[in-house]
Amino acid sequence: MSGSSFGKLFRITTWGESHGPGVGVVIDGCPAGISLSTEDIQKFLDRRRPGQSKYTTKRNESDCAEILSGVFEGKTTGTPISILVRNQDQRSKDYGDIAVSYRPGHADFPFKEKYGFRDYRGGGRSSGRETIGRTAAGAVAVRLLNELGINVCAYTKAIGPFVVEDDDLMLSEITENSLYMPSNAVAQKAGEYVASLMAEKDSCGGIVECIADGIPVGLGEPVFDKLDALLAQGIMSIGAVKGVEIGDGFAASSTVGSYNNDPFYMRDGNVCKKTNHSGGTLGGMSDGSRLLVRAALKPTPSISKTQHTVNESGEDIDISIHGRHDPVIVPRAVVVIESMTAVTIADLLLQNAVSKLNNIKKIYC
Amino acid sequence: MSGSSFGKLFRITTWGESHGPGVGVVIDGCPAGISLSTEDIQKFLDRRRPGQSKYTTKRNESDCAEILSGVFEGKTTGTPISILVRNQDQRSKDYGDIAVSYRPGHADFPFKEKYGFRDYRGGGRSSGRETIGRTAAGAVAVRLLNELGINVCAYTKAIGPFVVEDDDLMLSEITENSLYMPSNAVAQKAGEYVASLMAEKDSCGGIVECIADGIPVGLGEPVFDKLDALLAQGIMSIGAVKGVEIGDGFAASSTVGSYNNDPFYMRDGNVCKKTNHSGGTLGGMSDGSRLLVRAALKPTPSISKTQHTVNESGEDIDISIHGRHDPVIVPRAVVVIESMTAVTIADLLLQNAVSKLNNIKKIYC
Amino acid sequence: MSGSSFGKLFRITTWGESHGPGVGVVIDGCPAGISLSTEDIQKFLDRRRPGQSKYTTKRNESDCAEILSGVFEGKTTGTPISILVRNQDQRSKDYGDIAVSYRPGHADFPFKEKYGFRDYRGGGRSSGRETIGRTAAGAVAVRLLNELGINVCAYTKAIGPFVVEDDDLMLSEITENSLYMPSNAVAQKAGEYVASLMAEKDSCGGIVECIADGIPVGLGEPVFDKLDALLAQGIMSIGAVKGVEIGDGFAASSTVGSYNNDPFYMRDGNVCKKTNHSGGTLGGMSDGSRLLVRAALKPTPSISKTQHTVNESGEDIDISIHGRHDPVIVPRAVVVIESMTAVTIADLLLQNAVSKLNNIKKIYC
Amino acid sequence: MSGSSFGKLFRITTWGESHGPGVGVVIDGCPAGISLSTEDIQKFLDRRRPGQSKYTTKRNESDCAEILSGVFEGKTTGTPISILVRNQDQRSKDYGDIAVSYRPGHADFPFKEKYGFRDYRGGGRSSGRETIGRTAAGAVAVRLLNELGINVCAYTKAIGPFVVEDDDLMLSEITENSLYMPSNAVAQKAGEYVASLMAEKDSCGGIVECIADGIPVGLGEPVFDKLDALLAQGIMSIGAVKGVEIGDGFAASSTVGSYNNDPFYMRDGNVCKKTNHSGGTLGGMSDGSRLLVRAALKPTPSISKTQHTVNESGEDIDISIHGRHDPVIVPRAVVVIESMTAVTIADLLLQNAVSKLNNIKKIYC
Repeated sequence: MSGSSFGKLFRITTWGESHGPGVGVVIDGCPAGISLSTEDIQKFLDRRRPGQSKYTTKRNESDCAEILSGVFEGKTTGTPISILVRNQDQRSKDYGDIAVSYRPGHADFPFKEKYGFRDYRGGGRSSGRETIGRTAAGAVAVRLLNELGINVCAYTKAIGPFVVEDDDLMLSEITENSLYMPSNAVAQKAGEYVASLMAEKDSCGGIVECIADGIPVGLGEPVFDKLDALLAQGIMSIGAVKGVEIGDGFAASSTVGSYNNDPFYMRDGNVCKKTNHSGGTLGGMSDGSRLLVRAALKPTPSISKTQHTVNESGEDIDISIHGRHDPVIVPRAVVVIESMTAVTIADLLLQNAVSKLNNIKKIYC
Repeated sequence: MSGSSFGKLFRITTWGESHGPGVGVVIDGCPAGISLSTEDIQKFLDRRRPGQSKYTTKRNESDCAEILSGVFEGKTTGTPISILVRNQDQRSKDYGDIAVSYRPGHADFPFKEKYGFRDYRGGGRSSGRETIGRTAAGAVAVRLLNELGINVCAYTKAIGPFVVEDDDLMLSEITENSLYMPSNAVAQKAGEYVASLMAEKDSCGGIVECIADGIPVGLGEPVFDKLDALLAQGIMSIGAVKGVEIGDGFAASSTVGSYNNDPFYMRDGNVCKKTNHSGGTLGGMSDGSRLLVRAALKPTPSISKTQHTVNESGEDIDISIHGRHDPVIVPRAVVVIESMTAVTIADLLLQNAVSKLNNIKKIYC
Repeated sequence: MSGSSFGKLFRITTWGESHGPGVGVVIDGCPAGISLSTEDIQKFLDRRRPGQSKYTTKRNESDCAEILSGVFEGKTTGTPISILVRNQDQRSKDYGDIAVSYRPGHADFPFKEKYGFRDYRGGGRSSGRETIGRTAAGAVAVRLLNELGINVCAYTKAIGPFVVEDDDLMLSEITENSLYMPSNAVAQKAGEYVASLMAEKDSCGGIVECIADGIPVGLGEPVFDKLDALLAQGIMSIGAVKGVEIGDGFAASSTVGSYNNDPFYMRDGNVCKKTNHSGGTLGGMSDGSRLLVRAALKPTPSISKTQHTVNESGEDIDISIHGRHDPVIVPRAVVVIESMTAVTIADLLLQNAVSKLNNIKKIYC
Repeated sequence: MSGSSFGKLFRITTWGESHGPGVGVVIDGCPAGISLSTEDIQKFLDRRRPGQSKYTTKRNESDCAEILSGVFEGKTTGTPISILVRNQDQRSKDYGDIAVSYRPGHADFPFKEKYGFRDYRGGGRSSGRETIGRTAAGAVAVRLLNELGINVCAYTKAIGPFVVEDDDLMLSEITENSLYMPSNAVAQKAGEYVASLMAEKDSCGGIVECIADGIPVGLGEPVFDKLDALLAQGIMSIGAVKGVEIGDGFAASSTVGSYNNDPFYMRDGNVCKKTNHSGGTLGGMSDGSRLLVRAALKPTPSISKTQHTVNESGEDIDISIHGRHDPVIVPRAVVVIESMTAVTIADLLLQNAVSKLNNIKKIYC
């Protein structure tokens, strides 16, 4: 119960279902004095909006954010920031067999068992629309991070088997293709792959990578609220994510210590690292290098190909899920992962501020 | 700050450094009436104890658990269970250069920056001894899970490049080799690999897999406290872990929906799944199938091979870390990952119990 | 930071300022399957609405609740229940000197110091409108409690020096007078007192008492989340409250043990108490008797009488606060205190459900 | 469940029963760099130790504190501080009828109902020994507060009907009498009263007052984690406490606004208050004046006078509780209330540090 909040000091609480009146988020604990406008939030929401390319659902959702509290004269006030996005398309319709079937790859079955009930009109809290609240919160977190010189950037690392290798990675190309890949060349091939799957009524997954620069050293609270641990929770909690790794991640497990250890060295009086296999964390705390986190997303479970399943009456049936579904959710998940990364860093930034007496004296003495 | 607690209802708080008087855990929220003895805990601690094979550190730590509270006449009382393990080898010694150097792959540098200070005698809270508290808590969680027919089992899936493929996996062989691999044949080769690295003063990593059977459907609290999200946090928070995945994990990102979706079907009146690519979760809730989670561990950072680094005075230096270090930490991490999995499930089991009015009426009406 | 949430399992998060677009609450962790309608909430909101008698502010706020999520086909779904109440009267106006003065008895000064800023248009989060979220949440909690046979009832125990003594207390008369006193006779005198203060441009305070019947034995989580401790937090957190007591409260401090101890005895096979000096708690857990909690409310700080104070420029000044203020806030606080009591009980009811293994087996085995 | 923790950033977790191996506390989130010794803690524990006067139990408990972690070279390290106090007198003995009786005024009955079990050897977690952990934590909190110029001081305001009026209050006399009253004259009379009750095999209660000076303006997190709200929770959670009030508290409820409002004025360029009816909080935040909180404690429930009650078999019986019990617990509760006040302030001090962007920039920019 009460699993809809994330963060300790910079704390977000999301709410809302796909087919109810709206979705939203309450951001509690955002420091006072940060410039924040509706446009800041809208820009983030627009990045996850459907209907932007042929690879995303045709649903036309404008997803307009309304700030209901916590901002006065263009600045945050220190009180909870409540953001509302109305759902637009709530017309009742005939859900037919879907309403009583357990869709493969969806949460219908566990929802029904857990709550004795399920909202058959959509995924309920498993709907992709739940991420609107996360994204709005991410926009606010990014405003705080930017004030401190921290930048966060996510992109599509892979679509199905089409991967942008590190050597080919061009951050400038991310916004030049509708898959948000840092390589127009790979995006071209990946796009053709997605198109072929759409023709086959199938779907695919991919990998999103997120980097952050400018993070002060020491963020992360040992031992359970480490930076990497909370990133893992925050990102794994996003709908389709099945894996999270930091730095070299799984690849590190097959290397040796003398390779994987990043040697420190001095540069211009600062402690630096020659390599960054660790992905910017040591002992679960930021180490001053670029933070690098990667998430694996499964193929969209809604496909119009015929699938076998059962219904609530316990009968074996075949279903085919029609409607406006994304053949690949990865491009729209980019901003969501960027948002969860930003929210996690923002929270740990606040927590870390009081880690030593000297810091506290800077505030009060 | 205050990052040493994990769980909401079944809540553990670990404490202790490698070179202080001891380490331990307080388990708050364990239901009353569960049989629990010191032996239950000792069995778990013995599984992570060093000195058991040639592949682990030679330190001889008996790690005896003492239950200080929360158990009366052999049963849990519902009050906090405090468990203490005294450190044995606390003699002061000359730490030499290590005391003022930032060891590559270790948390020395961020610790110093975060707290304005570091405990040079060992890793402090980054020491492997911190996992003793987790393991003791895992033993208690497992007692609760067993009462409800839930079983958790972890093992070494891979050591460096030596992987036990799913088809070769024999759970019965896990305890037959000192690497806790479910294949004596692969363990043999992996052992030779580790021995060769020891000769080279190097180290390696690996992969641990954990499975759990008998979990009721519906565990996990959308949207941030999903089963997979909390597993990711709990496991990623373990020292050397750099990646976590559920079910097919990263591999799922390159498949298609028609393959990755697990079809439901009826078997003996129960809803079952023909495959389990999802690893036992849907929408972040348990789906009745076997839970499968996998963790990537980096190579042990302490190696006696010469490495470049800097010291606290900002000088570039070479260091060689001598002492009794594990060439691979993976076998000792097996029980820690099993423990964090058990603790996570235990907590969500309690939370899920009050998810619907009917359940609450079963208790009170 | 992030102090806008209350409760662990039945968790409420309130947001909103008096002069922003609206106020509201997110209730996370409400079990699925409880009947809930907008009317249930509206009834509670109407009880705290101003403009209902000559003793409350003349502001006409209709305070219409809108349920944005968490309810489907008339029942709670187990997902967060988001409730929105739009502010009606947000026209900008000239706040004059008030905008830059620290009003005595108000939070202007600490708000300014804390956040480097204050919302001069009203009390911001210290505004009485903040309690709308609490009240809406209370309505939901009461629905849950009623399903389990628990009833909560608050009333005005005293207005200024006019107290309803226990012997004169008639619960049936609470709704028969606009001060919500369980004695029309005392209410008559208290009303005259309030009228006289209004003539003097002054205000007064009072005492609210809240009782609850039907609470199962054992609610409350030792040692910090005891029933009485959380009631104290929840009720003391309401704007004007300056004291909270349970049962005989402060009076108990001057009695002797042989008087204050409530003797147990058997009645119809049940353990009962001959007296209830304890107010329904023992060791911070419900003891099966009527819960009795009492709150002291200070006089409304907004008075039109001239007062001395300082302004933000550090000048000593005289101010007179005009506008539509309640001469006594107590009658409107009754439903807020009832709500916080209900929310506290609801949360502890859920927590207590998993206190022993036998209960958990009732759910899962 | 899991109600043994208090605080968000400066977070304490107490554990232990009166008749188990020991009691203790884990303090997580204490900033690094604060001087702390075993003696600092021992001094606090000695203040609550029994056997110090004829008015307290004759039990001889030395209550020696051992710091198990979190301190290195005389300073806090930022990691959890675990403190252990061994119980001394754990010999098993014949508890006779008491073991199966529900003692009036004690938590035996709700404990049994809650956990299906009770520890008949003492009060379990309701034992006064539970407060040892709180007191040790208080000693640590006070060390932090002192570094910032904040001082906390509690004393016995009243024993039974013997009250130290504000005009007679001499802080210097607190440690000159064994009742810790700020008036030797009143203490003399109160002592005679207690002696007379002891002769009658009866007990009494009293009132403890706690003041704190030097608190920065703005501490407290609206709306549920206000300074007064968390003080109320923390203090009400102490065993015998039945009421908590801030400033004028209940007395404020019968005054008028023009009296109760504290006028601001300028003194030496600072905003000050002419009176302090509010007790140092406005809107639940510290207002720069002296914090004043008061707690009502009930008479010790353990009396040797014959009382009526029932046993676990459901039989009406008479019992007489023999043993070494305090005729009045108030003097020993003084340091516990001081401790909970200090812990609450410490936690809110850390939380408030990040309330505005400017503060955060002081740390990171």
